[in-house]
Amino acid sequence: MNKPALYTCLSPALLHLYDVKNTIVVVIDVLRATSTIATALYNGAKEIIPVDSVEKCIQLGTQIECITAGERDGQIAPGLQYGNSSFEYPETFIKGKILVLTTTNGTRLLHMALAKGATEIITGSFLNLSAVCVHLTAMKKNVILGCAAWKDKPNIEDTLFAGAVITKIKEQFTINCDASHIAENLYNLAKDDMYEFMKANDASHYHRLTGFGLEKDIRHCLTIDVANVLPEYVGGKLVKQK
Amino acid sequence: MNKPALYTCLSPALLHLYDVKNTIVVVIDVLRATSTIATALYNGAKEIIPVDSVEKCIQLGTQIECITAGERDGQIAPGLQYGNSSFEYPETFIKGKILVLTTTNGTRLLHMALAKGATEIITGSFLNLSAVCVHLTAMKKNVILGCAAWKDKPNIEDTLFAGAVITKIKEQFTINCDASHIAENLYNLAKDDMYEFMKANDASHYHRLTGFGLEKDIRHCLTIDVANVLPEYVGGKLVKQK
Repeated sequence: MNKPALYTCLSPALLHLYDVKNTIVVVIDVLRATSTIATALYNGAKEIIPVDSVEKCIQLGTQIECITAGERDGQIAPGLQYGNSSFEYPETFIKGKILVLTTTNGTRLLHMALAKGATEIITGSFLNLSAVCVHLTAMKKNVILGCAAWKDKPNIEDTLFAGAVITKIKEQFTINCDASHIAENLYNLAKDDMYEFMKANDASHYHRLTGFGLEKDIRHCLTIDVANVLPEYVGGKLVKQK
Repeated sequence: MNKPALYTCLSPALLHLYDVKNTIVVVIDVLRATSTIATALYNGAKEIIPVDSVEKCIQLGTQIECITAGERDGQIAPGLQYGNSSFEYPETFIKGKILVLTTTNGTRLLHMALAKGATEIITGSFLNLSAVCVHLTAMKKNVILGCAAWKDKPNIEDTLFAGAVITKIKEQFTINCDASHIAENLYNLAKDDMYEFMKANDASHYHRLTGFGLEKDIRHCLTIDVANVLPEYVGGKLVKQK
Protein backbone atom coordinates (compact mmCIF):
# COMPACT_ATOMS: atom_id res chain seq x y z
CA MET A 1 0.00 0.00 0.00
CA ASN A 2 1.19 3.49 -0.78
CA LYS A 3 2.02 5.60 2.20
CA PRO A 4 0.03 8.81 2.64
CA ALA A 5 1.77 12.08 1.82
CA LEU A 6 3.02 14.62 4.32
CA TYR A 7 3.71 18.27 3.51
CA THR A 8 4.88 21.22 5.55
CA CYS A 9 3.40 24.61 4.71
CA LEU A 10 5.67 27.27 6.21
CA SER A 11 3.16 30.13 5.96
CA PRO A 12 -0.61 30.58 5.51
CA ALA A 13 0.28 32.58 2.39
CA LEU A 14 1.50 29.34 0.82
CA LEU A 15 -1.49 27.17 1.75
CA HIS A 16 -3.03 27.54 -1.73
CA LEU A 17 -0.10 25.52 -3.13
CA TYR A 18 -1.19 22.40 -1.31
CA ASP A 19 -4.14 20.09 -1.85
CA VAL A 20 -6.03 20.63 1.38
CA LYS A 21 -9.02 18.46 0.50
CA ASN A 22 -9.02 14.94 1.90
CA THR A 23 -6.18 15.99 4.15
CA ILE A 24 -5.64 16.40 7.86
CA VAL A 25 -4.35 19.89 8.56
CA VAL A 26 -2.33 20.41 11.74
CA VAL A 27 -2.48 24.08 12.71
CA ILE A 28 0.74 25.08 14.46
CA ASP A 29 1.10 28.31 16.43
CA VAL A 30 3.63 27.40 19.08
CA LEU A 31 4.00 30.87 20.58
CA ARG A 32 1.41 30.74 21.97
CA ALA A 33 -2.06 30.04 20.61
CA THR A 34 -1.90 26.29 20.06
CA SER A 35 0.08 25.81 23.28
CA THR A 36 -2.62 27.64 25.24
CA ILE A 37 -5.31 25.63 23.46
CA ALA A 38 -3.67 22.33 24.42
CA THR A 39 -3.26 23.48 28.03
CA ALA A 40 -6.83 24.69 28.47
CA LEU A 41 -8.33 21.50 27.01
CA TYR A 42 -5.91 19.35 29.00
CA ASN A 43 -7.04 21.13 32.14
CA GLY A 44 -10.68 20.44 31.37
CA ALA A 45 -12.00 23.39 29.41
CA LYS A 46 -15.30 22.38 27.84
CA GLU A 47 -14.42 23.98 24.52
CA ILE A 48 -12.42 26.79 22.98
CA ILE A 49 -13.85 29.15 20.42
CA PRO A 50 -11.06 30.81 18.44
CA VAL A 51 -11.94 34.18 16.94
CA ASP A 52 -9.86 36.50 14.83
CA SER A 53 -10.51 39.85 16.47
CA VAL A 54 -10.82 41.43 19.88
CA GLU A 55 -14.20 42.80 18.84
CA LYS A 56 -15.63 39.36 18.09
CA CYS A 57 -14.23 38.09 21.36
CA ILE A 58 -15.92 40.87 23.35
CA GLN A 59 -19.18 40.39 21.43
CA LEU A 60 -19.27 36.65 22.09
CA GLY A 61 -18.52 37.35 25.74
CA THR A 62 -21.80 39.26 25.97
CA GLN A 63 -23.75 36.44 24.31
CA ILE A 64 -22.63 33.28 26.08
CA GLU A 65 -21.23 32.40 29.47
CA CYS A 66 -17.52 32.19 28.78
CA ILE A 67 -14.07 33.47 29.50
CA THR A 68 -12.76 35.96 26.96
CA ALA A 69 -9.05 36.02 26.36
CA GLY A 70 -6.42 37.41 24.09
CA GLU A 71 -3.42 39.68 23.94
CA ARG A 72 -2.10 42.42 21.78
CA ASP A 73 1.56 43.35 22.15
CA GLY A 74 2.03 41.08 25.13
CA GLN A 75 -0.76 42.64 27.19
CA ILE A 76 -4.32 41.49 27.80
CA ALA A 77 -6.29 43.25 25.09
CA PRO A 78 -8.57 46.06 26.36
CA GLY A 79 -12.05 44.68 26.93
CA LEU A 80 -10.92 41.09 27.50
CA GLN A 81 -10.46 39.26 30.79
CA TYR A 82 -7.42 37.06 30.38
CA GLY A 83 -4.25 36.72 28.36
CA ASN A 84 -2.58 34.15 26.17
CA SER A 85 -0.39 32.34 28.68
CA SER A 86 -0.80 28.68 29.58
CA PHE A 87 -0.19 29.62 33.20
CA GLU A 88 -3.49 31.47 33.34
CA TYR A 89 -5.47 28.28 32.72
CA PRO A 90 -4.95 25.79 35.55
CA GLU A 91 -7.59 23.10 36.09
CA THR A 92 -8.99 24.88 39.12
CA PHE A 93 -9.88 27.81 36.93
CA ILE A 94 -10.73 26.50 33.48
CA LYS A 95 -12.42 23.15 34.12
CA GLY A 96 -15.84 22.92 32.47
CA LYS A 97 -15.68 26.44 31.09
CA ILE A 98 -15.85 27.82 27.56
CA LEU A 99 -12.84 29.84 26.51
CA VAL A 100 -13.20 32.38 23.71
CA LEU A 101 -9.67 33.08 22.53
CA THR A 102 -8.66 35.69 20.03
CA THR A 103 -5.49 34.96 18.11
CA THR A 104 -4.51 36.36 14.77
CA ASN A 105 -2.19 34.01 12.92
CA GLY A 106 -3.58 30.72 14.25
CA THR A 107 -7.28 31.50 13.87
CA ARG A 108 -6.81 32.71 10.33
CA LEU A 109 -5.15 29.45 9.36
CA LEU A 110 -7.94 27.41 11.02
CA HIS A 111 -10.49 29.31 8.95
CA MET A 112 -8.48 28.90 5.75
CA ALA A 113 -8.13 25.14 6.25
CA LEU A 114 -11.87 24.88 6.90
CA ALA A 115 -12.74 26.93 3.81
CA LYS A 116 -10.50 24.76 1.65
CA GLY A 117 -12.27 21.60 2.74
CA ALA A 118 -9.79 19.85 5.02
CA THR A 119 -11.03 16.45 6.19
CA GLU A 120 -9.97 17.21 9.72
CA ILE A 121 -8.31 20.12 11.47
CA ILE A 122 -6.32 19.60 14.64
CA THR A 123 -3.92 21.85 16.51
CA GLY A 124 -0.35 21.03 17.44
CA SER A 125 2.20 22.32 19.90
CA PHE A 126 5.13 20.80 21.74
CA LEU A 127 2.81 20.40 24.74
CA ASN A 128 0.79 17.81 22.80
CA LEU A 129 3.37 16.51 20.32
CA SER A 130 2.80 12.82 21.01
CA ALA A 131 -0.98 13.05 20.80
CA VAL A 132 -0.64 14.64 17.37
CA CYS A 133 1.88 12.05 16.17
CA VAL A 134 -0.11 9.06 17.46
CA HIS A 135 -3.21 10.37 15.76
CA LEU A 136 -1.57 11.10 12.40
CA THR A 137 0.04 7.67 12.36
CA ALA A 138 -3.26 5.96 13.17
CA MET A 139 -5.30 7.87 10.59
CA LYS A 140 -3.13 6.95 7.59
CA LYS A 141 -4.31 10.00 5.65
CA ASN A 142 -2.49 12.78 3.87
CA VAL A 143 -1.21 15.46 6.23
CA ILE A 144 -0.34 19.13 5.96
CA LEU A 145 1.65 20.58 8.83
CA GLY A 146 0.43 24.17 8.65
CA CYS A 147 2.61 26.75 10.33
CA ALA A 148 0.65 29.82 11.42
CA ALA A 149 3.84 31.87 11.09
CA TRP A 150 3.93 35.57 11.99
CA LYS A 151 2.00 37.84 9.69
CA ASP A 152 2.66 35.26 6.97
CA LYS A 153 6.43 35.27 7.49
CA PRO A 154 7.82 31.82 8.34
CA ASN A 155 9.06 31.54 11.89
CA ILE A 156 11.51 29.32 13.70
CA GLU A 157 9.27 27.83 16.40
CA ASP A 158 6.45 26.62 14.16
CA THR A 159 9.00 25.20 11.73
CA LEU A 160 10.70 23.42 14.65
CA PHE A 161 7.44 21.81 15.68
CA ALA A 162 6.79 20.61 12.12
CA GLY A 163 10.30 19.13 12.22
CA ALA A 164 9.58 17.38 15.52
CA VAL A 165 6.46 15.74 14.08
CA ILE A 166 8.33 14.68 10.95
CA THR A 167 11.19 13.21 12.99
CA LYS A 168 8.69 11.06 14.88
CA ILE A 169 6.42 9.85 12.08
CA LYS A 170 8.34 10.10 8.82
CA GLU A 171 8.60 6.35 8.29
CA GLN A 172 4.82 6.15 7.88
CA PHE A 173 4.62 8.85 5.21
CA THR A 174 5.88 9.73 1.76
CA ILE A 175 7.61 13.09 2.08
CA ASN A 176 8.36 14.78 -1.22
CA CYS A 177 8.53 18.27 0.19
CA ASP A 178 11.65 20.35 0.70
CA ALA A 179 10.04 22.45 3.42
CA SER A 180 9.58 19.25 5.45
CA HIS A 181 13.23 18.33 5.04
CA ILE A 182 14.25 21.84 6.04
CA ALA A 183 12.04 21.63 9.14
CA GLU A 184 13.37 18.22 10.11
CA ASN A 185 16.98 19.33 9.82
CA LEU A 186 16.28 22.45 11.83
CA TYR A 187 14.61 20.46 14.58
CA ASN A 188 17.47 18.00 14.79
CA LEU A 189 19.88 20.90 15.17
CA ALA A 190 17.79 22.50 17.90
CA LYS A 191 16.21 19.62 19.80
CA ASP A 192 18.73 19.33 22.60
CA ASP A 193 17.91 22.84 23.76
CA MET A 194 15.26 24.59 21.75
CA TYR A 195 15.16 27.57 24.06
CA GLU A 196 18.87 28.21 23.58
CA PHE A 197 18.47 27.67 19.84
CA MET A 198 15.74 30.32 19.70
CA LYS A 199 17.87 32.66 21.77
CA ALA A 200 21.09 32.06 19.83
CA ASN A 201 19.26 32.70 16.57
CA ASP A 202 17.49 35.73 17.92
CA ALA A 203 14.19 34.25 16.74
CA SER A 204 11.84 37.14 16.10
CA HIS A 205 9.17 35.79 18.43
CA TYR A 206 11.73 35.06 21.13
CA HIS A 207 12.83 38.64 20.78
CA ARG A 208 9.27 39.97 20.90
CA LEU A 209 8.10 37.91 23.87
CA THR A 210 11.19 38.31 26.01
CA GLY A 211 10.71 42.03 25.50
CA PHE A 212 7.42 41.54 27.37
CA GLY A 213 9.09 39.49 30.12
CA LEU A 214 7.69 36.21 28.89
CA GLU A 215 10.78 33.96 29.01
CA LYS A 216 8.94 31.54 31.29
CA ASP A 217 6.12 31.27 28.78
CA ILE A 218 8.52 30.51 25.95
CA ARG A 219 10.25 27.79 27.98
CA HIS A 220 6.89 26.25 28.82
CA CYS A 221 5.77 26.28 25.18
CA LEU A 222 8.89 24.31 24.26
CA THR A 223 8.17 21.54 26.79
CA ILE A 224 7.12 18.25 25.26
CA ASP A 225 3.89 16.42 26.13
CA VAL A 226 2.89 18.24 29.30
CA ALA A 227 -0.65 18.82 27.97
CA ASN A 228 -0.95 15.79 25.76
CA VAL A 229 -4.46 16.04 24.33
CA LEU A 230 -5.69 16.21 20.76
CA PRO A 231 -7.62 19.42 20.06
CA GLU A 232 -9.92 19.08 17.06
CA TYR A 233 -11.70 21.95 15.32
CA VAL A 234 -15.34 20.99 14.86
CA GLY A 235 -18.23 23.33 14.14
CA GLY A 236 -16.22 26.43 14.94
CA LYS A 237 -15.02 25.05 18.27
CA LEU A 238 -11.90 23.31 19.47
CA VAL A 239 -12.70 20.30 21.59
CA LYS A 240 -10.65 17.49 23.04
CA GLN A 241 -10.93 14.51 20.73
CA LYS A 242 -12.02 11.40 22.60
CA MET B 1 25.47 54.17 11.88
CA ASN B 2 22.67 51.66 11.67
CA LYS B 3 23.42 48.60 9.66
CA PRO B 4 21.22 47.92 6.65
CA ALA B 5 18.62 45.16 6.96
CA LEU B 6 18.80 41.75 5.33
CA TYR B 7 15.80 39.50 4.72
CA THR B 8 15.36 36.12 3.12
CA CYS B 9 12.19 35.53 1.13
CA LEU B 10 11.74 31.76 0.74
CA SER B 11 9.20 31.96 -2.09
CA PRO B 12 8.02 34.51 -4.69
CA ALA B 13 4.56 34.05 -3.14
CA LEU B 14 5.89 35.76 0.00
CA LEU B 15 7.60 38.71 -1.71
CA HIS B 16 4.67 41.03 -0.99
CA LEU B 17 5.52 40.77 2.73
CA TYR B 18 8.82 42.58 2.26
CA ASP B 19 9.60 46.19 1.48
CA VAL B 20 11.21 45.81 -1.92
CA LYS B 21 11.65 49.53 -2.60
CA ASN B 22 15.09 50.97 -1.90
CA THR B 23 16.36 47.43 -1.62
CA ILE B 24 18.76 45.24 -3.55
CA VAL B 25 17.01 42.02 -4.53
CA VAL B 26 19.19 38.97 -5.14
CA VAL B 27 17.31 36.52 -7.35
CA ILE B 28 18.33 32.96 -6.51
CA ASP B 29 17.51 30.02 -8.76
CA VAL B 30 20.41 27.66 -8.10
CA LEU B 31 19.08 24.74 -10.18
CA ARG B 32 19.75 26.01 -12.72
CA ALA B 33 18.80 29.43 -14.10
CA THR B 34 21.04 31.72 -12.08
CA SER B 35 23.92 29.25 -12.32
CA THR B 36 23.63 29.23 -16.11
CA ILE B 37 23.36 33.03 -16.15
CA ALA B 38 26.59 33.39 -14.14
CA THR B 39 28.38 30.90 -16.39
CA ALA B 40 27.31 32.49 -19.66
CA LEU B 41 28.28 35.99 -18.53
CA TYR B 42 31.55 34.74 -17.04
CA ASN B 43 32.34 33.16 -20.39
CA GLY B 44 31.76 36.40 -22.22
CA ALA B 45 28.10 36.43 -23.27
CA LYS B 46 27.21 39.99 -24.29
CA GLU B 47 23.90 39.85 -22.45
CA ILE B 48 21.17 37.49 -21.37
CA ILE B 49 17.51 38.20 -21.92
CA PRO B 50 15.37 36.15 -19.53
CA VAL B 51 11.85 35.43 -20.74
CA ASP B 52 9.07 33.53 -19.05
CA SER B 53 7.80 31.34 -21.88
CA VAL B 54 9.08 29.19 -24.72
CA GLU B 55 6.88 31.18 -27.10
CA LYS B 56 8.52 34.50 -26.21
CA CYS B 57 11.91 32.87 -26.54
CA ILE B 58 11.13 31.60 -30.05
CA GLN B 59 9.64 34.95 -31.04
CA LEU B 60 12.68 36.91 -29.88
CA GLY B 61 14.87 34.42 -31.73
CA THR B 62 13.21 35.51 -35.00
CA GLN B 63 13.71 39.21 -34.21
CA ILE B 64 17.31 39.51 -33.07
CA GLU B 65 20.51 37.61 -33.62
CA CYS B 66 20.74 35.43 -30.58
CA ILE B 67 20.88 31.98 -29.11
CA THR B 68 17.57 30.70 -27.81
CA ALA B 69 17.64 28.35 -24.88
CA GLY B 70 15.48 26.67 -22.33
CA GLU B 71 14.26 23.33 -21.11
CA ARG B 72 11.05 21.72 -20.12
CA ASP B 73 11.20 18.49 -18.15
CA GLY B 74 14.96 18.22 -18.55
CA GLN B 75 14.91 18.37 -22.36
CA ILE B 76 15.60 21.27 -24.72
CA ALA B 77 12.16 22.76 -25.31
CA PRO B 78 10.77 22.20 -28.81
CA GLY B 79 11.60 25.19 -31.02
CA LEU B 80 14.66 26.24 -29.00
CA GLN B 81 18.32 25.58 -29.78
CA TYR B 82 20.00 24.92 -26.46
CA GLY B 83 19.29 23.76 -22.93
CA ASN B 84 19.79 25.02 -19.42
CA SER B 85 23.14 23.50 -18.53
CA SER B 86 26.25 25.52 -17.77
CA PHE B 87 28.23 23.01 -19.80
CA GLU B 88 26.57 24.17 -23.00
CA TYR B 89 28.03 27.66 -22.68
CA PRO B 90 31.84 27.56 -22.86
CA GLU B 91 33.68 30.71 -23.88
CA THR B 92 34.38 29.37 -27.36
CA PHE B 93 30.65 29.23 -27.96
CA ILE B 94 29.00 32.03 -26.04
CA LYS B 95 31.53 34.90 -26.16
CA GLY B 96 30.02 38.09 -27.54
CA LYS B 97 26.63 36.54 -28.12
CA ILE B 98 23.16 37.34 -26.83
CA LEU B 99 21.46 34.50 -24.98
CA VAL B 100 17.68 34.48 -24.71
CA LEU B 101 16.89 32.12 -21.87
CA THR B 102 13.48 30.96 -20.83
CA THR B 103 13.09 30.02 -17.19
CA THR B 104 9.92 29.95 -15.18
CA ASN B 105 10.62 30.47 -11.49
CA GLY B 106 13.62 32.79 -11.83
CA THR B 107 12.25 35.05 -14.56
CA ARG B 108 8.99 35.54 -12.72
CA LEU B 109 10.82 36.69 -9.60
CA LEU B 110 12.98 39.10 -11.64
CA HIS B 111 9.82 40.67 -13.07
CA MET B 112 8.16 40.86 -9.66
CA ALA B 113 11.17 42.58 -8.10
CA LEU B 114 11.25 45.05 -10.98
CA ALA B 115 7.51 45.78 -10.70
CA LYS B 116 7.86 46.41 -6.98
CA GLY B 117 10.56 49.00 -7.52
CA ALA B 118 13.74 47.33 -6.32
CA THR B 119 16.74 49.66 -6.39
CA GLU B 120 18.85 46.98 -8.00
CA ILE B 121 18.30 43.39 -9.06
CA ILE B 122 21.21 40.98 -9.26
CA THR B 123 21.32 37.20 -9.60
CA GLY B 124 23.08 34.81 -7.26
CA SER B 125 24.31 31.23 -7.41
CA PHE B 126 27.09 29.30 -5.76
CA LEU B 127 29.13 29.87 -8.93
CA ASN B 128 29.25 33.59 -8.14
CA LEU B 129 28.79 33.61 -4.37
CA SER B 130 31.77 35.85 -3.60
CA ALA B 131 30.88 38.44 -6.22
CA VAL B 132 27.41 38.74 -4.69
CA CYS B 133 28.75 39.01 -1.15
CA VAL B 134 31.44 41.56 -2.00
CA HIS B 135 28.86 43.69 -3.78
CA LEU B 136 26.25 43.56 -1.01
CA THR B 137 28.85 44.44 1.59
CA ALA B 138 30.09 47.39 -0.46
CA MET B 139 26.65 48.80 -1.23
CA LYS B 140 25.50 49.10 2.39
CA LYS B 141 21.85 48.98 1.37
CA ASN B 142 18.92 46.85 2.48
CA VAL B 143 18.94 43.41 0.90
CA ILE B 144 16.32 40.77 0.11
CA LEU B 145 17.63 37.34 -0.74
CA GLY B 146 14.84 36.18 -3.03
CA CYS B 147 14.54 32.45 -3.54
CA ALA B 148 12.88 31.57 -6.85
CA ALA B 149 11.71 28.29 -5.28
CA TRP B 150 9.78 25.69 -7.32
CA LYS B 151 6.30 26.71 -8.33
CA ASP B 152 6.28 28.88 -5.22
CA LYS B 153 7.20 26.05 -2.85
CA PRO B 154 10.40 26.73 -0.89
CA ASN B 155 13.29 24.53 -1.94
CA ILE B 156 16.47 23.35 -0.30
CA GLU B 157 19.06 24.61 -2.78
CA ASP B 158 17.90 28.23 -2.98
CA THR B 159 17.56 28.31 0.81
CA LEU B 160 21.11 26.92 1.10
CA PHE B 161 22.45 29.69 -1.11
CA ALA B 162 20.69 32.34 0.98
CA GLY B 163 22.33 30.73 4.01
CA ALA B 164 25.75 30.84 2.36
CA VAL B 165 25.41 34.56 1.70
CA ILE B 166 24.23 35.21 5.25
CA THR B 167 27.10 33.21 6.73
CA LYS B 168 29.55 35.40 4.81
CA ILE B 169 28.10 38.87 5.31
CA LYS B 170 25.92 38.77 8.42
CA GLU B 171 28.20 40.99 10.49
CA GLN B 172 27.46 43.90 8.15
CA PHE B 173 23.67 43.62 8.38
CA THR B 174 20.82 43.70 10.87
CA ILE B 175 18.98 40.41 10.48
CA ASN B 176 15.59 40.31 12.17
CA CYS B 177 14.20 37.57 10.01
CA ASP B 178 13.57 33.97 11.02
CA ALA B 179 13.79 32.72 7.45
CA SER B 180 17.36 34.04 7.33
CA HIS B 181 18.26 32.20 10.53
CA ILE B 182 16.69 29.03 9.18
CA ALA B 183 18.67 29.38 5.95
CA GLU B 184 21.93 30.03 7.77
CA ASN B 185 21.50 26.98 10.01
CA LEU B 186 20.63 24.81 7.04
CA TYR B 187 23.72 25.96 5.14
CA ASN B 188 25.99 25.31 8.08
CA LEU B 189 24.61 21.78 8.32
CA ALA B 190 25.10 21.16 4.61
CA LYS B 191 28.20 23.12 3.65
CA ASP B 192 30.75 20.35 3.93
CA ASP B 193 29.02 18.38 1.20
CA MET B 194 25.98 20.08 -0.24
CA TYR B 195 25.52 17.42 -2.90
CA GLU B 196 25.30 14.68 -0.30
CA PHE B 197 22.99 16.85 1.78
CA MET B 198 20.64 17.27 -1.18
CA LYS B 199 20.78 13.56 -1.86
CA ALA B 200 20.32 12.50 1.76
CA ASN B 201 17.31 14.78 2.07
CA ASP B 202 15.89 13.67 -1.25
CA ALA B 203 15.60 17.33 -2.26
CA SER B 204 12.78 17.56 -4.78
CA HIS B 205 14.97 19.22 -7.41
CA TYR B 206 17.75 16.72 -6.85
CA HIS B 207 15.18 14.01 -7.41
CA ARG B 208 13.80 15.68 -10.54
CA LEU B 209 17.15 16.43 -12.17
CA THR B 210 18.86 13.14 -11.40
CA GLY B 211 15.84 11.53 -13.02
CA PHE B 212 16.99 13.31 -16.20
CA GLY B 213 20.60 12.16 -15.74
CA LEU B 214 21.80 15.57 -14.59
CA GLU B 215 23.92 14.65 -11.54
CA LYS B 216 26.93 16.38 -13.11
CA ASP B 217 24.91 19.56 -13.55
CA ILE B 218 23.82 19.53 -9.92
CA ARG B 219 27.39 19.04 -8.70
CA HIS B 220 28.54 21.92 -10.89
CA CYS B 221 25.79 24.23 -9.61
CA LEU B 222 26.99 23.60 -6.05
CA THR B 223 30.58 24.63 -6.83
CA ILE B 224 31.63 27.90 -5.30
CA ASP B 225 33.03 30.84 -7.27
CA VAL B 226 33.85 29.13 -10.57
CA ALA B 227 31.97 31.83 -12.53
CA ASN B 228 32.48 34.72 -10.20
CA VAL B 229 30.77 37.62 -11.96
CA LEU B 230 27.96 39.89 -10.85
CA PRO B 231 24.92 39.67 -13.18
CA GLU B 232 22.71 42.74 -12.95
CA TYR B 233 19.23 43.06 -14.43
CA VAL B 234 19.02 46.35 -16.32
CA GLY B 235 16.47 47.30 -18.93
CA GLY B 236 15.18 43.77 -19.29
CA LYS B 237 18.66 42.30 -19.77
CA LEU B 238 21.18 40.65 -17.52
CA VAL B 239 24.64 42.04 -17.99
CA LYS B 240 27.93 41.64 -16.19
CA GLN B 241 28.32 44.53 -13.80
CA LYS B 242 31.64 46.33 -14.33
